[in-house]
Amino acid sequence: MRCKDLTPFMVMDIVRDASKYEDAIHFEIGQPDLPPSPKVLKTLEKNLNKAAYTQSKGLEELRGKIAKHYEKEYGVSVDTSQIFLTPGTSGAFIMAYALTLSSGDILGLSDPSYPCYKNVARVLDIEPLFLPISKESSYELRKEDIKGKNIKAIQISSPANPTGNIYGKNGLKELIKGCKEEGISFISDELYHGLTYEKRAHSALEFDDELYVINGFSKYFCMPGFRLGWIIVPKQKLKEAEILAQNLFICPPTLSQYAALEAFDEEYLSFVRDTFRKRRDYLFEALSEFFTIDAKPEGAFYLWADISKYSNDSALFAKELLEKIHVAATPGVDFGIKDGKKYMRFAYTKEISHMREGVDRLRQYLSLK
Amino acid sequence: MRCKDLTPFMVMDIVRDASKYEDAIHFEIGQPDLPPSPKVLKTLEKNLNKAAYTQSKGLEELRGKIAKHYEKEYGVSVDTSQIFLTPGTSGAFIMAYALTLSSGDILGLSDPSYPCYKNVARVLDIEPLFLPISKESSYELRKEDIKGKNIKAIQISSPANPTGNIYGKNGLKELIKGCKEEGISFISDELYHGLTYEKRAHSALEFDDELYVINGFSKYFCMPGFRLGWIIVPKQKLKEAEILAQNLFICPPTLSQYAALEAFDEEYLSFVRDTFRKRRDYLFEALSEFFTIDAKPEGAFYLWADISKYSNDSALFAKELLEKIHVAATPGVDFGIKDGKKYMRFAYTKEISHMREGVDRLRQYLSLK
Repeated sequence: MRCKDLTPFMVMDIVRDASKYEDAIHFEIGQPDLPPSPKVLKTLEKNLNKAAYTQSKGLEELRGKIAKHYEKEYGVSVDTSQIFLTPGTSGAFIMAYALTLSSGDILGLSDPSYPCYKNVARVLDIEPLFLPISKESSYELRKEDIKGKNIKAIQISSPANPTGNIYGKNGLKELIKGCKEEGISFISDELYHGLTYEKRAHSALEFDDELYVINGFSKYFCMPGFRLGWIIVPKQKLKEAEILAQNLFICPPTLSQYAALEAFDEEYLSFVRDTFRKRRDYLFEALSEFFTIDAKPEGAFYLWADISKYSNDSALFAKELLEKIHVAATPGVDFGIKDGKKYMRFAYTKEISHMREGVDRLRQYLSLK
Repeated sequence: MRCKDLTPFMVMDIVRDASKYEDAIHFEIGQPDLPPSPKVLKTLEKNLNKAAYTQSKGLEELRGKIAKHYEKEYGVSVDTSQIFLTPGTSGAFIMAYALTLSSGDILGLSDPSYPCYKNVARVLDIEPLFLPISKESSYELRKEDIKGKNIKAIQISSPANPTGNIYGKNGLKELIKGCKEEGISFISDELYHGLTYEKRAHSALEFDDELYVINGFSKYFCMPGFRLGWIIVPKQKLKEAEILAQNLFICPPTLSQYAALEAFDEEYLSFVRDTFRKRRDYLFEALSEFFTIDAKPEGAFYLWADISKYSNDSALFAKELLEKIHVAATPGVDFGIKDGKKYMRFAYTKEISHMREGVDRLRQYLSLK
């Protein structure tokens, strides 16, 4: 059965358990607490009567805005026909895997990486293969990691969940080249682009156009509940991709598409970026007091912390912190095999005052251990 | 490759092609032209600030309303924990198939039936097996149709797309019983419930609770673009279903869920039903002038018309009607193998005055053939 190896997306279980405590401190939540741009809400108000299906690939106007975004941000030219709006990036993963992998094929994933990758793959009877990354390789996969393993596609994310790492220009370029040499399809999850604090994140499209780029409105654009992502597919896959979108989704949510027409609001987005940069600076320093954090995150809104000083079972430790001091964070076992039990993910998606209370509770509790 | 046998969802292609003609008559569109209840729009307005994820299975309050709907409409008791809100019924199909079928397993489908069933199955590497239905069996599958064919699950729809047929109480009960005897999982697509004009549609849940019932807000509730469906799963599948929903969807669109809280508006819904009943009465009589329509549809908003007097290739005939007289309808080949080339689907989702213009064009054009 395709479901037998599925693992719960633990963070959703923790979100549920944490909701039982009124005074819970939330380091578990992988979504911004900031609202969407006021312009998004205003355009939504004007379009409340849009109740019909759209084209399967989504509104032409919105795909045009996304194409412009690629031109402006990365200097790459994407045809609007290559852009498919999807029900969240979740829908985009299903499309990417269905377009590149047959049953039994191997999908290479970083260890650690976003938990849903492996599970969506398993639902499609695709075998996830975990490729360990670490501080030594700047949390990047290298050519040599993917060779000779019968891998048919790899998926990376940059900035990465859970480490916050951003692939360097050269590392990304070489990995894409290596995949091409080996005949491995390349899937680039760029959902945290924009949430980058010092160095720029490169789009995989800067280096090749026969690959799959996934992004969406849930993080940087602060529109998680709108469930709107997109995938850019190579030109030779357009017909197949359209058939998939028609059959799997009919179309993405219509109201969300109209709302997103105003999402590229530069001024608001730089406020979003600044807010998360400050939070990162605070939490990185604060948590470094108790945990070993291998590297300061360069993007996204997560810290990947080594908790092995206190426990060798992150799932138990997460449960303990939640029950004893009502501090919620996500155990590393959700993300990887190699170090999953030694690490936990702390999201900085709440205000600094809220996080400070959590840090105070951790200080008091851990000092007794 | 899992995509190699996929067929386009033709109606979406025709919708696109028809949009080129300003004066097109639309018999192709599978969505109501009526807006959602005014109450839906009012509650939406009040909840524009709801931008966060919800629980993976959706808002407890909405699932509670759905559970009450089953109590009231069918006298069956459903626990809210069994109800999963999904991104359209499309998401519900993926869940149902993933929960019941492994790669290579056989899914039994009526011929004709909704085109996406077979394609979603193929994406999951499931084999669709078409089981012909006809006027002689009241367009119902019977026990004997499913025996000895190594079928692992069947999916039916009632009222059916494209025939408009409703399973009789006894036929449905016996088919469910037959599936149970053969160890075949039963998936009941009840999306057109409510759009029933004389006889009542029974929910499969009235006869057994170890089966899968799918419904949603796109048709009767006139909310297609909201992309909100639901699936009711057997109690022993709750954990697996929750993991699937977490990983495949994160959650259904949040705004759509808040909007749907007011969707069960009896007064408005009976206006919707009356409107479509009148349209059916008009179009059935009008099209009977040219085509052979085996049976007056009992529900949904489609007519399944035998066009073999004029053509033995419904795809070509659809193209001809669209190009010559700008009348759009869906070729039967989208829905089935057996009679697909001889039949076309006409949707009565537009006002009678609009349909009358189409009928006039058909009369003039077909009289010359």
